[in-house]
Amino acid sequence: MAKPFHLYDTTLRDGAQQEGMNLSVADKIQIAALLDRLGVDFIEGGWPGAIPKDTEFFARLAKEVTFRNATLAAFGATRRAGARAAEDPQVLALLEAETPVVTLVAKSDIRHVERALKVAGPENLAMIADTVGFLVGQGRRVFLDAEHFFDGYRFDPAYAVSCVEAAAQAGAEVVVLCDTNGGMLPESIAAIVAEVGQASAAQLGIHCHNDTGCAVANSLAAVEAGAMHVQGTINGYGERTGNADLTAIIPNLVLKLGRGALGADRLADLTGVAHAISEITNIAPFARQPYVGTSAFAHKAGLHASAIRVDPDLYQHVDPVAVGNDMRMLVSEMAGRASVELKGKELGFDLAGQNDLLTRVTDKVKALEAEGYTFDAADASFELLLRAELPGGAPEYFRVESWRTISETVPNGHAAPAGPAGQGGRGGQGVRSGRFGAEAPTASEATVKLWAGADRLVATGEGNGPVNALDAALRLALGEVYPELAEIDLVDYKVRILDSARGTDAITRVMIESTDGAAVWRTVGVGANIIEASWEALTDAFAYGLLTAGVAPR
Amino acid sequence: MAKPFHLYDTTLRDGAQQEGMNLSVADKIQIAALLDRLGVDFIEGGWPGAIPKDTEFFARLAKEVTFRNATLAAFGATRRAGARAAEDPQVLALLEAETPVVTLVAKSDIRHVERALKVAGPENLAMIADTVGFLVGQGRRVFLDAEHFFDGYRFDPAYAVSCVEAAAQAGAEVVVLCDTNGGMLPESIAAIVAEVGQASAAQLGIHCHNDTGCAVANSLAAVEAGAMHVQGTINGYGERTGNADLTAIIPNLVLKLGRGALGADRLADLTGVAHAISEITNIAPFARQPYVGTSAFAHKAGLHASAIRVDPDLYQHVDPVAVGNDMRMLVSEMAGRASVELKGKELGFDLAGQNDLLTRVTDKVKALEAEGYTFDAADASFELLLRAELPGGAPEYFRVESWRTISETVPNGHAAPAGPAGQGGRGGQGVRSGRFGAEAPTASEATVKLWAGADRLVATGEGNGPVNALDAALRLALGEVYPELAEIDLVDYKVRILDSARGTDAITRVMIESTDGAAVWRTVGVGANIIEASWEALTDAFAYGLLTAGVAPR
Repeated sequence: MAKPFHLYDTTLRDGAQQEGMNLSVADKIQIAALLDRLGVDFIEGGWPGAIPKDTEFFARLAKEVTFRNATLAAFGATRRAGARAAEDPQVLALLEAETPVVTLVAKSDIRHVERALKVAGPENLAMIADTVGFLVGQGRRVFLDAEHFFDGYRFDPAYAVSCVEAAAQAGAEVVVLCDTNGGMLPESIAAIVAEVGQASAAQLGIHCHNDTGCAVANSLAAVEAGAMHVQGTINGYGERTGNADLTAIIPNLVLKLGRGALGADRLADLTGVAHAISEITNIAPFARQPYVGTSAFAHKAGLHASAIRVDPDLYQHVDPVAVGNDMRMLVSEMAGRASVELKGKELGFDLAGQNDLLTRVTDKVKALEAEGYTFDAADASFELLLRAELPGGAPEYFRVESWRTISETVPNGHAAPAGPAGQGGRGGQGVRSGRFGAEAPTASEATVKLWAGADRLVATGEGNGPVNALDAALRLALGEVYPELAEIDLVDYKVRILDSARGTDAITRVMIESTDGAAVWRTVGVGANIIEASWEALTDAFAYGLLTAGVAPR
Repeated sequence: MAKPFHLYDTTLRDGAQQEGMNLSVADKIQIAALLDRLGVDFIEGGWPGAIPKDTEFFARLAKEVTFRNATLAAFGATRRAGARAAEDPQVLALLEAETPVVTLVAKSDIRHVERALKVAGPENLAMIADTVGFLVGQGRRVFLDAEHFFDGYRFDPAYAVSCVEAAAQAGAEVVVLCDTNGGMLPESIAAIVAEVGQASAAQLGIHCHNDTGCAVANSLAAVEAGAMHVQGTINGYGERTGNADLTAIIPNLVLKLGRGALGADRLADLTGVAHAISEITNIAPFARQPYVGTSAFAHKAGLHASAIRVDPDLYQHVDPVAVGNDMRMLVSEMAGRASVELKGKELGFDLAGQNDLLTRVTDKVKALEAEGYTFDAADASFELLLRAELPGGAPEYFRVESWRTISETVPNGHAAPAGPAGQGGRGGQGVRSGRFGAEAPTASEATVKLWAGADRLVATGEGNGPVNALDAALRLALGEVYPELAEIDLVDYKVRILDSARGTDAITRVMIESTDGAAVWRTVGVGANIIEASWEALTDAFAYGLLTAGVAPR
């Protein structure tokens, strides 16, 4: 029989230590369901007893979710010094969580034992043995996290190994060697795991943090040296620099090292699960994240576009489809007809052989890029541009007659009252920042004059800034004609000053990300006037949203 | 003599391939100066000849910056097939850049040679030998980047090594083995580097990408296996998942492996340089970035707060001060009195022992940081804030009664005529960008009402955007009272959306850099209204300029 291999996820416990992360019980339940769908073997849910929200999580999870793949683990500490495990409320709370697995954390660096825990070395060993033995006796599978193991081993290897032995002999199924401070490099990890494997018959696991930027490599080095259990978090969430990123470890194990850690069918869920979890944590995904990042398989094609088209394997270390991601060609500087053709294909337009069209679109892209546009990320603006060159053109939902926006200090010290939802969310409170606390609040309003078919639409909106006011006015003007606009939310707004050395007289590029709840699209606008650039990205965002909703122009 | 060791930075060339990155020549020059200050050995500036902006960069850099530490390298390709190196315009452009080092890229994977480059194996070897030989003959130090080396070596080791040999025998000083597709893991990197070191006497370098999440570990593995030259980028910028991150590699080399790659005094600049470069690229820094991230040494203290305070070494893998970062306890996130005192000292104010004052200023800074201000870079705004708390307060050059700015489409298709210099530089031409070429031009005007002493000053200015118009109006209103304002130029204007997920209703931070021709100062403004934030940074900039010019308030 092959040695078992464990993928152990601690997103909900150690990952939740990340700065700025704050998960509700409902968030944790949603994440647990996604982790189970992905197919990890163990899900560590939290610390029942110590954290009230975690106690509630374990109680609700049992009722609300049935795992198909994963086994649930509760996390806790060894008994207090001088107490009996069977009488320690913290230990009993672990039993009450009724999980098949309990993961205990224990100190294995004698300096931490003596200086932080303030107990003698032998008592720490007794705490490990008693608590493991008690829980095993109660029918639990027990894993032991040996905290600060590597630093401890370097300082006093005999004591560190005695902690491993105490746990294993009391019945711990796995002893997990933790690089708690994250300072290790792969070569030392490999050497120490191999040495401990020689010194003890315990089954070993690995738990790394990314303080040297090597958590993924450290985890793999431990597996190569004999560890059969790998702990990590989705998206590498965690305190400081984060935990070892399972979204990189898993595909490396499966695709590079040939470990069947996760079925190939599950692996194709990786990108989707990683993104869904980042929606729940509300922590913006990192575009450059290996395997699952939006840029992970994005190529600035340039001169090599045709080579990539013919032989993508020459330019990609794995097939992005294997991890549920996609190759993307960035239409960017030095864009050629080949990359425009490829981008069109990605968007569902077969442009092969349409030479005049390809030339027209490529020339247009080049001219706009020279002005400061970039279509790297702004797929929606690119598609509108492409459609405008196709027979029939892009649908015209509205024509702009004019717009105007006014921003000013509010003389009576009060900003406009709160508007309806369409007018933006922060309305109501005066805009009252300012270093010396004495500035007058400001307010913005915007008036737009549009045509939709034969209807002339005029509306005025208010907002906390000029673009927010234009957004509100556009929605007011178009809302009756196109009620579908209510479904469209702007979820991201970025401003880049392109030639910032011109001071306030610089070219500005605005990128807007929008969603209808399902799809997400990005649009771009450029101008010497920041408001004009924003207006352009805004109107593109609305036009594209209506287009994908299948709305017919008036 | 110790073997030389090279830190080779390619932020300006390979790093600039990152999705969404768009560096002006001025940006590149600023970054080069920062890299030199950090102390890297080589700075790869770009590809002269192939990219016009890079040609300009090399021409301007020589005039504007004198390196104290670094040697400049130009990047280019080997000669075309069937041509002579001495007659290849691309090769000649490399000479014209007049850099001490030329780094040539060449293919070393026979599949790429035959299928992408479409030349026979021997011709590729001749291209390498000829181009290296020609440039060495012209007095250049030549490094050769062997593209797709590791994939090529696995497929056909003999051919890959013959490329290394062709370069070395023609005089290349270093042959850099590139994991171009980024698919390698450390163990294989170490094995292949060691094998190549056996097969060839060439001095070897390493160039990694982060597609497996192992670029840092891969670079270190190569060094341990004998590479004496490491390429990477600041903040790991680069195409797809990015290049190997020098901001992690450097401290790992110095602090973990004891390589004197960078002096300890320089290492303390690491965090500052990394952050300054991310200001220039306008790519938000990644909080979890090893060593330099804002979260890298941030502890959720909880129960261990006192233990960490007493024994920080037990909880940190290195001293954060060594890399210019700081330990942060997340319970008390913000600025402490000690850092305010230190900052004050930096600006020439001795605040030691003034406890009430320190408390007031620290509380003010904390409150403003919570709103989104940052004074790390905005020394001038910090000094105004500090002076406001000192006996006598900050001088009041003008009081603001109100301001208003209007931006609108121009009905007759013509923007306002060119104004005098005080109204901003781009006046005169209609603002006529827009994807479909059909948008009306826009124009902005602003009216400000101010008091200087007993004088009420009212003026209206025009500009290409609302902030440009406010700038013009401020100058018109104050110009007679404070003619010194004519000496002040705004040289940089940056906008960052702080909570961009709120769409157009987000908090905005504006940073303005100003100069009087000698000194340079930076000011900050924050608000839900981008114009209000800009106004704040603008008025601070003028006030600070008058203050340093020694002007007495009216």
